[in-house]
Amino acid sequence: MSSPTRRPGRPRDATIDEAIVAAVFDLIEEVGLAPVTIDAIAERAGVSKATIYRRWATKDDLVVDAVAGLIGRSLELPASGDIRAVLVAVLRQMESFMSMSVAGSIFPWLVGEVAAGTEIGRHYAAAVIIPRRADLGTLIRQAIERGELRADLDVETALDLIIGPVIVRKLMGRWRQPEEDWVPKLVDGLLAGWAP
Amino acid sequence: MSSPTRRPGRPRDATIDEAIVAAVFDLIEEVGLAPVTIDAIAERAGVSKATIYRRWATKDDLVVDAVAGLIGRSLELPASGDIRAVLVAVLRQMESFMSMSVAGSIFPWLVGEVAAGTEIGRHYAAAVIIPRRADLGTLIRQAIERGELRADLDVETALDLIIGPVIVRKLMGRWRQPEEDWVPKLVDGLLAGWAP
Repeated sequence: MSSPTRRPGRPRDATIDEAIVAAVFDLIEEVGLAPVTIDAIAERAGVSKATIYRRWATKDDLVVDAVAGLIGRSLELPASGDIRAVLVAVLRQMESFMSMSVAGSIFPWLVGEVAAGTEIGRHYAAAVIIPRRADLGTLIRQAIERGELRADLDVETALDLIIGPVIVRKLMGRWRQPEEDWVPKLVDGLLAGWAP
Repeated sequence: MSSPTRRPGRPRDATIDEAIVAAVFDLIEEVGLAPVTIDAIAERAGVSKATIYRRWATKDDLVVDAVAGLIGRSLELPASGDIRAVLVAVLRQMESFMSMSVAGSIFPWLVGEVAAGTEIGRHYAAAVIIPRRADLGTLIRQAIERGELRADLDVETALDLIIGPVIVRKLMGRWRQPEEDWVPKLVDGLLAGWAP
């Protein structure tokens, strides 16, 4: 193993990044997204503003990267399993993110940016939506190849049907009255039409 | 028939309302939503600012009412027909609204307001989303009663599945590459799982 003293900056950088991201989420939970400033983030994380600006050009960039990191961790796609298990896991992970208190502030902002096709919206789509959608598309195609889903299933339409209800429910604020077991009900409804 | 002179104010009011709403859409098409001002709307419609403020407290209120009127006209639910015809018609009407150039400016703003649960977002939900969703739910329940859809279909989940893909496609900007016939494909895919 190489000496831990070879590149001493790396471990410290990661710790600083983590402290900054943790400060972002703490502050968003406390006051919402709009009032959070780089000043407040720097103070909460115990770093200088220059340290933050060396890593991110704007607060928006920082928040998008923080969300991308959070979703990257919390929405891991299962590597195996039949397609029912995969879809239930993916939707439960999306539900779990959507139910987090930070999502309450971040989702309306991000959904507006994505819809408007702003730079932030495109950054978020490129960092989170497009790769996750591609991964899920691959899992659907593999299920078609295994004969679990019908061969003529349109994968893009299937992706819209899996993701759409989560977005609609979040938009309409219906997460506030959580319904037990809506995820397996939704998945079973979809799979009934997707059987070979 | 009553004399047309009995309530002379009414027809003029409607004409003024129409001129104001037409001016709103003209200006949004020309410059986008954000830069449009009550001043510019008044000038374009040929009315005074006071005339507008007598009807609407803010520009946002005016825009929401204008959109509600537009969607109320353009997204009429078919009164009869089998459920396939109803769903194809509803989705084609939504697609048609989403493809209008004004929707390009209005949709990102409204979706953010609805997601954030602001006063404007709740106004739009109450004026447009909730009644339209209720109407479509009634049509689905009638199709269940006629035996066209399976008796244990969850109507709220079905509504999310019908509406979700349109929202996702618009959010992701995929309206720019219109795919022919995605609507009947989507409806046939849904109905395959919803048959009795």
